[in-house]
Amino acid sequence: MYDKMGIKEENMDFQNYFTIWNKLNTVQQNRILGSVITRKVSKGTVIHNGGMDCAGLLLVKTGQLRAYILSDEGREITIYRLFDMDMCLFSASCMIRSIQFEIIIEAEKDTVLWVIPPETYKSIMEESAPLANYTNELMASRFSDVMWLMEQIMWKSLDRRIASFLLEEVSIEGTDTLKTTHESIANHLGSHREVITRMLRYFQNEGMVKLSRGKIEITDVPKLQKLCEE
Amino acid sequence: MYDKMGIKEENMDFQNYFTIWNKLNTVQQNRILGSVITRKVSKGTVIHNGGMDCAGLLLVKTGQLRAYILSDEGREITIYRLFDMDMCLFSASCMIRSIQFEIIIEAEKDTVLWVIPPETYKSIMEESAPLANYTNELMASRFSDVMWLMEQIMWKSLDRRIASFLLEEVSIEGTDTLKTTHESIANHLGSHREVITRMLRYFQNEGMVKLSRGKIEITDVPKLQKLCEE
Repeated sequence: MYDKMGIKEENMDFQNYFTIWNKLNTVQQNRILGSVITRKVSKGTVIHNGGMDCAGLLLVKTGQLRAYILSDEGREITIYRLFDMDMCLFSASCMIRSIQFEIIIEAEKDTVLWVIPPETYKSIMEESAPLANYTNELMASRFSDVMWLMEQIMWKSLDRRIASFLLEEVSIEGTDTLKTTHESIANHLGSHREVITRMLRYFQNEGMVKLSRGKIEITDVPKLQKLCEE
Repeated sequence: MYDKMGIKEENMDFQNYFTIWNKLNTVQQNRILGSVITRKVSKGTVIHNGGMDCAGLLLVKTGQLRAYILSDEGREITIYRLFDMDMCLFSASCMIRSIQFEIIIEAEKDTVLWVIPPETYKSIMEESAPLANYTNELMASRFSDVMWLMEQIMWKSLDRRIASFLLEEVSIEGTDTLKTTHESIANHLGSHREVITRMLRYFQNEGMVKLSRGKIEITDVPKLQKLCEE
C-alpha cells in the first residue's frame, strides 16, 4: 500500500518535471512510465563516458551534473551544467546518428535523477512531433551554451573567464566562500593549475579574493563583476 | 510551355536535394513547393546577419556558404561551412526559441540556393515527426562541427590549426595553389594577420608552402599532414 502510494507520488513528480508530458498520448505516457527508472548517484560518479555509453535521457530531480570534454593529455573543459528539472540529451547520443562527439557527464553533487531508456525515447520521438520538437529545443539550448563558451574562449582573456567562473559559482552555491581547488578551476576552464594559481594570486593582491587551503573567499563581488564587463 | 518545364525540373531538383521529401504528405509537400524560392547570391553576400535576421531555411544547390561569429572588436572565426545539398538551419533561428546566439552566414562562392520561409517550415515541423527528427539530425550535425572546433581551439596549437585549415582548403578547392590572404586565414581561425604571417613564413622555411602575393602554394602535403597528427 505504502509502496503503491510511493510509486504514484514518484510518477506525479516525474510528470511535473518532464514538461512535454501532456502532449504525449496515453500509450506513449504508459510506455515511458513502464521503463523510466530512478537513480541516486553520489558526487563524483561518472554517469556517461563518451561515445561508447548510451545510458539514456537523464532528467535531474535534485542535484547537479557537469558535462565536459577531455583532451588526449587529460585536460578538461566544462561545456555546461544541469540543475533541477534539466534534461540531459547527450547521455543518449546513440539515439541521434549525427551526434559525433565524446562528452563526459559527471555528478557534481549527490544527485537524484530519472533515466528514460534511449530505445523507449527514440521510438516515441519517431512518431511524436511534440517530443521531437521538444528534443530540438533541448539541443538548441545546449548549442547556445556551447556557442557562449566558444565566444568566451575566443574573445575573452583568462582573467575575465576566471572572474566570470567565480561569480557563477557564488550564484550556484549561494555563498561567498567557495570550497574548491585551483586544479578544479583549471579543469572547468581547460587551463593549467599553475596558470590559475598565478591569476588567483593577482586577484588576491587586487583585493578581490582571499585564498586559503581548499577555499576561495570572494571579498569584492562588484570588482569581479566590473572585470567581467571590461 | 518552356517555363512550365523549367519549373517542373527545378521542383524535381529541389525534391532530390531535400532528402526528407518522401516522408512528407502531399499537403505538406505542396505547402513547401508553393512557398520555396530560388536565390542566386554572389560571393561575399551576407545572407544572414545575427539574431535580427530570419531569412529561412537555406538549401544549397551549388556553391559554398560560411557561418562565422564576430567579436566586439570585429575578429571572426569560421564555425562551419555548407556545400551542395547542405541545409542551413540557423538562418531560420526565429523558428526555434532556444537558439540564443548570433551567427553570420555569407556566400564564400557564387551560390544558388533554395529558401524555405521559416513560417512554412515551422508549421509543418510542428505536426510532422519526420521533419522534426530531420531537423534534430541537422542540428546535431552542426553541433558536432562546433564541438570539433572547440577541441581544436582548446587542445591544438595554432601551427596545427593552420596546417589543418590549409589541407581542408586544398581538398575543397581541388588545387595545391590557394588564392587566399593571410587576413582571410586569420578570420577563419579567429587569429590576427600578423600571427598567421609569422607562422606561414615558418612553414615556408620548413619547405611546406611557398608564399607569393595573394597565393599560398602547398609544396609538401605529407609534412603538413604529419604536423596535424602530432
